[in-house]
This record gives sequence, C-alpha cells and structure tokens, in this order.
Amino acid sequence: MLVVKKFGGSSVADAQRVMNVARIVTDTYKEGNDVVVVVSAQGDTTDDLIEKALEINPRGGKREMDMLLSAGEQISISLLAMAISSLGYPVISLLGWQAGFQTNSTYGAARIKRVDPERIRAELDKRRIVVVAGFQGINKYDDITTLGRGGSDTSAVAIAASMHADVCQIYTDVEGVYTADPRKIPSAIKLTEITYDEMLEMATSGAQVLNNRSVEMAKKYGVELEVLSSLKRAPGTKVKEVTNVEKMLIKGVAKDDSVARVSIIGLPDSPGIAFKIFSRIAKAHICVDNILQSVGRDGTKDIAFTVPASNGDEAVQALKEYCEAKGVKALECDTNVAKVSIVGAGMETHEGVAADMFGALSDAGINIQMISSSEIRVSVLVEKKDADRAVEAVHRHFLGD
Amino acid sequence: MLVVKKFGGSSVADAQRVMNVARIVTDTYKEGNDVVVVVSAQGDTTDDLIEKALEINPRGGKREMDMLLSAGEQISISLLAMAISSLGYPVISLLGWQAGFQTNSTYGAARIKRVDPERIRAELDKRRIVVVAGFQGINKYDDITTLGRGGSDTSAVAIAASMHADVCQIYTDVEGVYTADPRKIPSAIKLTEITYDEMLEMATSGAQVLNNRSVEMAKKYGVELEVLSSLKRAPGTKVKEVTNVEKMLIKGVAKDDSVARVSIIGLPDSPGIAFKIFSRIAKAHICVDNILQSVGRDGTKDIAFTVPASNGDEAVQALKEYCEAKGVKALECDTNVAKVSIVGAGMETHEGVAADMFGALSDAGINIQMISSSEIRVSVLVEKKDADRAVEAVHRHFLGD
Repeated sequence: MLVVKKFGGSSVADAQRVMNVARIVTDTYKEGNDVVVVVSAQGDTTDDLIEKALEINPRGGKREMDMLLSAGEQISISLLAMAISSLGYPVISLLGWQAGFQTNSTYGAARIKRVDPERIRAELDKRRIVVVAGFQGINKYDDITTLGRGGSDTSAVAIAASMHADVCQIYTDVEGVYTADPRKIPSAIKLTEITYDEMLEMATSGAQVLNNRSVEMAKKYGVELEVLSSLKRAPGTKVKEVTNVEKMLIKGVAKDDSVARVSIIGLPDSPGIAFKIFSRIAKAHICVDNILQSVGRDGTKDIAFTVPASNGDEAVQALKEYCEAKGVKALECDTNVAKVSIVGAGMETHEGVAADMFGALSDAGINIQMISSSEIRVSVLVEKKDADRAVEAVHRHFLGD
Repeated sequence: MLVVKKFGGSSVADAQRVMNVARIVTDTYKEGNDVVVVVSAQGDTTDDLIEKALEINPRGGKREMDMLLSAGEQISISLLAMAISSLGYPVISLLGWQAGFQTNSTYGAARIKRVDPERIRAELDKRRIVVVAGFQGINKYDDITTLGRGGSDTSAVAIAASMHADVCQIYTDVEGVYTADPRKIPSAIKLTEITYDEMLEMATSGAQVLNNRSVEMAKKYGVELEVLSSLKRAPGTKVKEVTNVEKMLIKGVAKDDSVARVSIIGLPDSPGIAFKIFSRIAKAHICVDNILQSVGRDGTKDIAFTVPASNGDEAVQALKEYCEAKGVKALECDTNVAKVSIVGAGMETHEGVAADMFGALSDAGINIQMISSSEIRVSVLVEKKDADRAVEAVHRHFLGD
C-alpha cells in the first residue's frame, strides 16, 4: 500500500512530539507500506516568523513573505527526518519544489497547478520514507510560493492524487469527525464514515477539521481520506464518495460564530439593485454566504447577508457610498450572530428534516434570524448567545443523548 | 560599478540591525551602483537550529542538517529584502540554488563548483537590489548543501568572481584589519591595504577577520576585497594583489591560542619514521602546522608538532598504538601553548626580521618553544600565559607605541 500521512504544526511542536510522529510513521512503514509524510511548520513557527516580518515592514511584500514562511516547514521536515533516522529507518526530506509542487504565482494563496512526483517515486523505490514540506511550492519563475493557511492538507491530498495513493491520512488533535464538537456536546458521536459532500458542508458550516480545498481536491480525484488523532492510536473517520452507513439521517451539527450579518434597510425596489450590491462586495474579494431579501413594501426592500466576521467592516465600507447615494435607511453590520447547521446526505431523500430542526429550536425558545439550505445542509442564523444551546437542542433531537 | 556586499549573522541579528544593513545597501545603490548583498543567518539562529537537531538525534545525518541549517539564511534574506523594500527600493531575495550556486555533495562543508549568475544578472538588469543567501548551494541531485562555517564570505567572493564585480565588501564588527587585536593592543594600527598572501598568513596565524577559503578564492580570481565595519561608516582595509604601501616591514602581529603541541620523545632513529607518523595523522583528517624534529642522539630522536587544540587528543589516539609498538619514552599533548606570528610581505626583501623578533621576545624574558616561518611570516610557540605579553613586545618593537 502507498500511504500518505499529514501532520499539522501542533503534532510536531517539540522534540517529543516529533518523535511521536516518527513512531506512527515507522509503524506503518514496518508493515511493508510505502510512506510519504507531509508536515507543516512546528507549532508557532509561522506566527513567530510573521511577527519578525511585521517588526521590519508591515507590508513586506507577498513574495518575500512566502520566502520567509516556507523556512518553517524546511525546519520541521529535516527534524522529522532526523527523528525517523534515529529509530533506524531510511528517510529523506524534500522541500515543496524538490517534491515537484508547481503552483501559480499567487503568493500567499497559490494554487497547485500540478505535482510531478518523480523524485518522491525514486526515493520510495529506494525503500525510503519520504518527508515532504507541506504548504509550499514553486512557480514558473522558480520562486517559492505558499498555499495559504491549511495548505498542508491540500499538499497531502495532491500527492495522494498524483501518486494514486491508497489512503491519505490527516492527523489532527481530535480523533475524527464528530456529529458535534465533543468538547461542547458530550454525547457527540465519532463518525466512522462521511461523504466528501457532507464533509465539505461541515467545513463551510464551521467544523474546523479539514481544509475545504483539500476535501474538494480529494473528491475530484477520488482520494480516500481518513481523519485521525496523532495522540491516540485509534481508527478515525473515513471521508469517501459513498458511505455504507446510510441509516444516519444527519451526520453532524456544526456551529460557526465567526460570521457577521450585514443588513441594508430600505433600499429602493428597482431592478438590478441586488446585482449592484453584490458586485461591489465581490470586487472587495469578500465571500458572501447566506442572502436574504425581503419582499418589497412601500417601494423599498431590505437585503441581509452574512460574511466572515473579519470582513464585516470591509463589506460595510464597500457599500457605504452606494447606499448613501440610494438613500437607504440603514446599513448595519452585526457580529453578535452565529450560524448553526445540520449536514447529512440522508436529508436528500427524507422530507421534513428542516422543519424538524426549526421545531427543535422553537421548543428551546431560540429565535431564527435567517435560513439557508443546500441539498444536504440546513443552516440557521441565531443570536450568538443562543448558539451553543441551539447546537445542543438540535443534536439531541436528531442524534439523541 | 557592481558592488558585492556581505554581512554576517551579528550584523542582521535583530530588526534594528537589519534596517541598518538596509540603509548601508541602499546608500550604495543610490549612487548608481548595481548591488548584490550576501547575508548569513541571523545571530544565533544556526546555533538554535543545531540545538533543536541535537535534542532529536545527535547523529542527525549531514544531508538533513544542511536542509535544517539553510533555513536560517532563508529567514534573513527575506527580512532584509523587506527592510530594503520599506525604504522604497526595488529588491528581490534569492536562495543559494536560485542564485546559481552549484556545489559538490560534501554536506556540511561543500565546495562551490560553479556559480551561474544568470538569475542575479537578470534581476540587476531590472535595477533591483539582489539579496542572496550565503553559506548554501545545491548539488547535482538538487539537494541543499552548506559550505561550512564562515561560508558566507566564500559565497560573496564567488559571486564577485563570477560576475567580475568591482569590489567585494565584507562587513564585520571590526573596522578593518589591524596590526594586532585592537582590544588587546591599544596602539594597533588599522591597515589601509594588505596583500592576499599577507591576509592568508594573518588568518592562519589566528586573526579571525576573514575566512581563509574566501581569501584564497579572491586571490585566485583577482577579486578586490574590502573589510569594513557594519556599525561605523569609515573606509576599511583593502585586500589586493599588490599594495602601494611598501614602507611597512610587517603588517601585523597575530596570536592563536587554540593550538596544541604533540610531542613524541625517544623515537627510534630509523628512516621513514616521520612518514609513518604523519600519514597516521593525515588519515585522521588532522591538519598539522609546525613540525620540529630533533637531531638524533643515542639512536633516538624527538618529534614535536602543533595541531588545532580541538584535535590534540585525537592526534594522540591516532599515534598511540604505533608509538607503543616502537617503545617511545613519551607521547604527550600540551594545550598550554600559543602561537605568536608576524606577517608582512616586506620581510621577503629584508634580512634579520626573524632575529629582531626573537630579540624582542628575549628582552621581554619570554621563552620560545618552537619556530616556523614562511617567506612572509615568522611564528613562534610560547607558553600560553606569555602570549599576550609576547604580542605586545613584538608589536612595540616593529610598529611602535
């Protein structure tokens, strides 16, 4: 079997944890598998490097920032290779460019164009464990690029896809994907399996287990993912195209409290106004999530939408001039909200799942501000203070105690 | 003019010093020059990285160690580029391999095979200041190598040689090359000029201003060097083929107290015995400096030689078996010694310089244990406790108060 494993920064934060990762890796190798390991920078390295840069030049330039930050994984791959070597196994570390990662030139958030795994394959043929720097690649100018935060997941999936790996294991500090945050909901269940689509909806709904781009790529190339713990040896959650366990109506309840609701009250009810609003938002490179538009009344209407909390003020700025020109009554940004979602492929074939969710919230006395849904997801916006209670009520209703 | 500048780790140790270097660099650029800057890793970065490695695996493997350590310059070049950019000048940083450094595969102490400065030239043509990572290159397997300690000097000279730079300026924490260590001898004079050969003899005699390999390379390719201070704006010392100032008989007095004297007393006086001794030392990769062999007496003779202090015990180990088999009276290593040298091209054409030196030492009541000399150098071995007084006496004699 060819196994790709990915370990995040906290899994390699110090010498002891690096040794722990080395043992996990060599255990898989000992069983006769080919092993490629993708690692991120150690613990706070990236933040420390960013701090150094800010001290010198707050607008350091994205190319130089990528040059700086990519040193982080260079340190962690060599240390992990040394740890594996100390256990007596053959190993080699490779930087992004050595491992064949070609990206576009969007410094700080580069897209992988292709992975040429020739060197990795040659090293595996020598029966070496190959340790690859995640998060980084090289563009057509031979300059170093980074994939943006969470990019190491994508690096791992890209290697697994290009080499047709049997499985891509993503190690985290949780034991898998749960039906809700187990720190908050003690009755949350660890899922054995989940589909790519469900995982994507979970991630966009606030479950911070896997980077979304990596799940999209895994889906596109049919890479079987497994999410598991680097601290506890136990099976994790498999992410795949179709799951066997179809009896579960919903796979999870997620909460995202880093959202902001932008409301525009009293817009003139003329054609094309929504286009004008959202093209301004798009120009500011802000992702819009839910959109709610009231029915026109007195020749005006209201539009509300949610954006990431960090973009709330920007969104208001982007619209201010236009809204003032149109004489709107109010343009507001409210960050005192949270989004609660249920996700499950089962709801495609079951009616009334949304209604059930609203009922559970109503019974708990929680007011719903906005609603949005996809085929396999229903999300509601509630007041931030109600969010945890909402997750609990909905989880209890669908998944029991 | 094309100017290559090199700054060591202490010159870029923190944000403030990085800004200082940025100002020195941009001042030269402002005058209309093309500027290439070579930098080492910040302050203690290399030592910190070595410590991380030792914690995980004391025998980490040299390839992985080079992978680890080369991250140090990656951090410093990007920070310096950000600093230069913050002053409003166009700049780009390049890693060793991006700057065209091809080396052999001796990890940890690689030799530069060639520098292909195509990328550097292209960036200079765009009127950019080019910041290059010193100390590192790439071998024929596309793996990262390092040149060993002090390698950044060599990197700078190699770029200057391959691009026919007008001058290669090596910035340090001293203001130039002095006739003696100015912290010890207040009357020491800063030299305006010194020849390559004198500089080489000074360096091997203990003056730690320039890395020897870099001076050898500068001599071979006729690169004009200048040693100057990164903290004080003042002309430094030029190192070149021929100096104009011929009136100075000697250019400096140097001390090296990290030497050990190995003595073998009572060796049988048979042919080929010196060969057998020193081939064993060579096999242990130990550099021998002075050698002294006594005239044979009673069918035995004595041999003494000096080696770097750190190799003293190794040298004894390498000879132990052989000496015991030959029944020598004693095999000893003495680190309680120091080498004091005078260097100057002038002594080639002046007789009696050595005798003058011995006289000055005699007047100061200092006993000479061994003597060696080249065409432009005379070195004596003295007791360690006498070394500073010896330097002072000799400096006073030749260079005055």
